[in-house]
Amino acid sequence: MTDLFAFGLGIATRNARGETLEVYYPAPLAKPEGAVRDLIEKHVPERSATLPAEFAAKLAELLPPGGAASAAHRTLAEAGAKLDAVALRTDDAIASTAEAYLKLHLLSHRLALPNSMNLEGIFAKLPNVVWTSVGPIDVAEFTARQIEARGAGTPIVVHGVDKFPRMTDYVIPSGVRIADGSRVRLGAYLGEGTTVMHEGFINFNAGAIGPNMIEGRISQGVVVQPHSDLGGSSSTMGTLSGGGNITITIGRNCLIGANAGTGIPLGDRCTIEAGLYVTAGTRVDVLDENGTLVRTVKARELAGQSDMLFLRNSTTSRVECRTNRAAIELNTQLHAHN
Amino acid sequence: MTDLFAFGLGIATRNARGETLEVYYPAPLAKPEGAVRDLIEKHVPERSATLPAEFAAKLAELLPPGGAASAAHRTLAEAGAKLDAVALRTDDAIASTAEAYLKLHLLSHRLALPNSMNLEGIFAKLPNVVWTSVGPIDVAEFTARQIEARGAGTPIVVHGVDKFPRMTDYVIPSGVRIADGSRVRLGAYLGEGTTVMHEGFINFNAGAIGPNMIEGRISQGVVVQPHSDLGGSSSTMGTLSGGGNITITIGRNCLIGANAGTGIPLGDRCTIEAGLYVTAGTRVDVLDENGTLVRTVKARELAGQSDMLFLRNSTTSRVECRTNRAAIELNTQLHAHN
Amino acid sequence: MTDLFAFGLGIATRNARGETLEVYYPAPLAKPEGAVRDLIEKHVPERSATLPAEFAAKLAELLPPGGAASAAHRTLAEAGAKLDAVALRTDDAIASTAEAYLKLHLLSHRLALPNSMNLEGIFAKLPNVVWTSVGPIDVAEFTARQIEARGAGTPIVVHGVDKFPRMTDYVIPSGVRIADGSRVRLGAYLGEGTTVMHEGFINFNAGAIGPNMIEGRISQGVVVQPHSDLGGSSSTMGTLSGGGNITITIGRNCLIGANAGTGIPLGDRCTIEAGLYVTAGTRVDVLDENGTLVRTVKARELAGQSDMLFLRNSTTSRVECRTNRAAIELNTQLHAHN
Repeated sequence: MTDLFAFGLGIATRNARGETLEVYYPAPLAKPEGAVRDLIEKHVPERSATLPAEFAAKLAELLPPGGAASAAHRTLAEAGAKLDAVALRTDDAIASTAEAYLKLHLLSHRLALPNSMNLEGIFAKLPNVVWTSVGPIDVAEFTARQIEARGAGTPIVVHGVDKFPRMTDYVIPSGVRIADGSRVRLGAYLGEGTTVMHEGFINFNAGAIGPNMIEGRISQGVVVQPHSDLGGSSSTMGTLSGGGNITITIGRNCLIGANAGTGIPLGDRCTIEAGLYVTAGTRVDVLDENGTLVRTVKARELAGQSDMLFLRNSTTSRVECRTNRAAIELNTQLHAHN
Repeated sequence: MTDLFAFGLGIATRNARGETLEVYYPAPLAKPEGAVRDLIEKHVPERSATLPAEFAAKLAELLPPGGAASAAHRTLAEAGAKLDAVALRTDDAIASTAEAYLKLHLLSHRLALPNSMNLEGIFAKLPNVVWTSVGPIDVAEFTARQIEARGAGTPIVVHGVDKFPRMTDYVIPSGVRIADGSRVRLGAYLGEGTTVMHEGFINFNAGAIGPNMIEGRISQGVVVQPHSDLGGSSSTMGTLSGGGNITITIGRNCLIGANAGTGIPLGDRCTIEAGLYVTAGTRVDVLDENGTLVRTVKARELAGQSDMLFLRNSTTSRVECRTNRAAIELNTQLHAHN
Repeated sequence: MTDLFAFGLGIATRNARGETLEVYYPAPLAKPEGAVRDLIEKHVPERSATLPAEFAAKLAELLPPGGAASAAHRTLAEAGAKLDAVALRTDDAIASTAEAYLKLHLLSHRLALPNSMNLEGIFAKLPNVVWTSVGPIDVAEFTARQIEARGAGTPIVVHGVDKFPRMTDYVIPSGVRIADGSRVRLGAYLGEGTTVMHEGFINFNAGAIGPNMIEGRISQGVVVQPHSDLGGSSSTMGTLSGGGNITITIGRNCLIGANAGTGIPLGDRCTIEAGLYVTAGTRVDVLDENGTLVRTVKARELAGQSDMLFLRNSTTSRVECRTNRAAIELNTQLHAHN
């Protein structure tokens, strides 16, 4: 009996040629064991299968009673749709649209951390889709659908044309607030207590461990540790967007000010003042606890260090890194409210 | 006969346990008097009541004929829904979800200015709600609803998961344009002639008196006076987001440039150049009308003053505050168009 | 037989007073010739006409078989709606809502480049409309519609209140991705290979020739040439938003960093580092290829030049323009993925 890396059972949308556009897995499973694994192994001998409603009902019975996964599969059994299953034995490269969606679901269901899975091939396997008020539509089929809808007096509203959908149409993790659903991609990881305000953004394979107040942009690959806040329009450089090879992590109890940004990873208790962008190549005057200049270095040499306060000295106009002595008093209201 | 502070009659959404998720009041009333007040006092002796359609019809008859409030209550009478009423005798702390929604409606209906009402308890009384294409849904009930919808081939689109809804689903004030409805929370105050472009944002209990062109972010508690513009991605520090205790006001005929920001309140005719963030602690060289340095102060000492032009001198690289002699020629096209 | 500048056949929404709110033209035609032109001249002798479904069917037969325009008109013939036609003989000022929509469609269908058409009168002819989940609604009619919808348990969701709708509800150009449909206005020009990420924005009469990665804001009138990228929250000053009379163009192979901005047009192979806003009045130290200071000029004197690298020297804190020797290695992944 082999191990299972992950399993998903759900409902897919297909285009007129029968190609899968996307799959919704209400309750994916990571490393299922015992009777659950045995049931899956028996009915899904290959990487994928189409299964009847009874399978969902059986799975619901084997899952922990009273749990969300059991309830979801029971509802799935009653939903009356054809069910698509994907069973991944190992974490290898993505081979299908259904597999890509399963891995994105695992991230948003907090069953895998960002940068922990093999996502090779994901762009190639995700079709570009028109995300609309009546569900996902194939790009080539959209115009005819819209003409018909307009003729019937029920216009279709298009929310995006993209390989990635909004997370919230698929997964709403517990204990989060997301002011604008269009700003969080499926595949984002949002830990308990994460609030994403209107200006916040979280890409796939990126996230906030929670609790966090996110009003800035978390690029692909970036992870923000607990009790750190990203101010409005603040920027974290991603590996896909100019940040190069460095994977950016923001440690605990950090604050990146409004309209600020970082091209280097930060340790714990770091602050970047509002409006300051620290790129890897920025020369920084490092001061000791007495405010004495110790040395001047490029910011990349400070990567990952803790207790740094970055600001532009308004007397010398140079960028400084001071010791962040003042414990950052993160406004607790920030986390409770907004 | 006691006075009434405010009254709302509307339609609520409840979850499966009967708890109120939100209430829509098409035409709330501030300080109603005379026969209207008497009718309300008679039928709503407590803070809240459930009322039949006839009450809405009677209220419509007593309100100024031909007015929006009368028309709305007449339509409400014919809508066939159970009606929820809230009558607040005084402006005390918020005691229920229905009361929280009434106060948010008062702000967006221009019946109360930001910072003028007692909003104590509002976060505790606003449940987190899934805002969807089929209306508000309880967070705990969402997954089952989505599975059923997907099974039926009519997927639900989620626009947000938040305590606050979009204003435009509840109130569309006269004479405004809002390019992206997801950027303005219920409880925002938008005066006549306010345009909120795609990058603009207005929080609850915050607003623009109008006319204004808003392409930046108006944080909670912040008010922008007439004929002032916020450039794209510009930032105003709110009391909930790092700005501390200072309540930021932007005076008349001000311009905060694109990607700029302020941590201090501004008087009238102030400009901050594009890309410059003035925090309370920024040291600023103050020049007189002849361009002579008068003194260097922290920006907080300039809080609320008028006729200031903030820029980073590109010779000295220091932040300067010059006398804003050149009358700011606010492009009138900005207000008519975009 | 006169020439035709443009023709559109489509479906309109009207308010209760019969006024046109908007028109959807699935396949507008630029400078149609031959039999197509003759058919149009015959049936649309004035600037506009209402036509039966048969006209769309006849037009479909005359258009290139197998093409998108032919297919769209065939579907239009079967849609069962009253059809609105607009035929513009010349590119003169906009005289009706239907004409305004035709010109906006021409831009988004790549049948006209930004700044190439006469858009005089467009603001006056575009009514402010409530854009909702059930289609466009007249501002004055909205409240009654929402009350009725709420009474029926099917709340209307409002996506915007604006003169301009989202492009994607009308046109989805080939080979593009648009993460958030609310960020691209009808009338935007998106060339093949353009990706507009969540933070990107493209106004009407503005665009990206493609391929481009757009995570910043393209203001009205601004055009971005191929292989140039706008970083997150980056800003281009438009003529309507403070940029004055200069029309901004961004040349080929440029990169405007995250949270950066430009108030001057750029030639090819220019870079502005993350966080730097170059306004027309910024004094810039121009260095030669050896890094020697050549002269100091206001940025507007560098307008339109190529091979410029703008950064704030982190030793002197002054803004420099260096020769952009290092060929900008535009991450090809950026264009394939995100």
